[in-house]
Amino acid sequence: MPKGNHTPNRPARDAVELAMDVLSDRWTFLILREGFFGVRRYGQMQRNLGIARNVLADRLRSLVADGMFERVRYRTDPDWYEYRLTDRAIGLYPVIVGLMQWADEHLVPEYGELIDLALTHRACGHRTEPYLACSHCHEPVTARDIEATITPP
Amino acid sequence: MPKGNHTPNRPARDAVELAMDVLSDRWTFLILREGFFGVRRYGQMQRNLGIARNVLADRLRSLVADGMFERVRYRTDPDWYEYRLTDRAIGLYPVIVGLMQWADEHLVPEYGELIDLALTHRACGHRTEPYLACSHCHEPVTARDIEATITPP
Repeated sequence: MPKGNHTPNRPARDAVELAMDVLSDRWTFLILREGFFGVRRYGQMQRNLGIARNVLADRLRSLVADGMFERVRYRTDPDWYEYRLTDRAIGLYPVIVGLMQWADEHLVPEYGELIDLALTHRACGHRTEPYLACSHCHEPVTARDIEATITPP
Repeated sequence: MPKGNHTPNRPARDAVELAMDVLSDRWTFLILREGFFGVRRYGQMQRNLGIARNVLADRLRSLVADGMFERVRYRTDPDWYEYRLTDRAIGLYPVIVGLMQWADEHLVPEYGELIDLALTHRACGHRTEPYLACSHCHEPVTARDIEATITPP
């Protein structure tokens, strides 16, 4: 792992680099986002993203190889397949939410009209802007509150 | 915005795509990560990342154009510059933490020995594994707990 077709310039040295071996492409993120929106079919992804068919096929192959999508036959004769997000991919959700919130705050005001995405927390029923909380004291944390300690392998 | 040299295949339609216009490159993430580790000098980034000098110069130029780094002169005669993360870049921290945690859980076990990063929350003094919490009820949230509603521009 990762088994995708991306060739990094050197082997990964920490978890962030390993993540980027799987995700180092704009299309890869956008295809995963289609998955989070519930899109499972090649044709619908292709139309939603306006992506070239060979590029979509290539990225989906990598994402399946990297364990992000499962390719499942949903119809026979002829065989048709759909792409289902794996638990591994679903674990990436905080990153997608983080990208969305960051761009909402820092980029959208300068860019103008875009599709707006509102998030609702099913358990409490309210609109939510999820934030990062400390696993010990449960208070919100930001970059300035965190100290990182590096341990070589 | 974004003013970087990346040319996306079509204009961004939502915040995630806008974020990827700025971040759609493995090196871009890794250079930002150097910034989060406190590295500000070109030469040290170059050595830490093992990146070609022209590639680093190109990505730093884009990151400055996109408002992620500020280029600040710290010595004169000759003029030497360092690269300081802006507030915009610091706002991306939850994404970096999310990538790290995701890879720690899903990729590192298959990959083996890597640099380990431990995070400490300065305010409470404890080691922390930050998690995503609902801004309304403050409970942890995952992809399965959230419903997204799309509003066209």
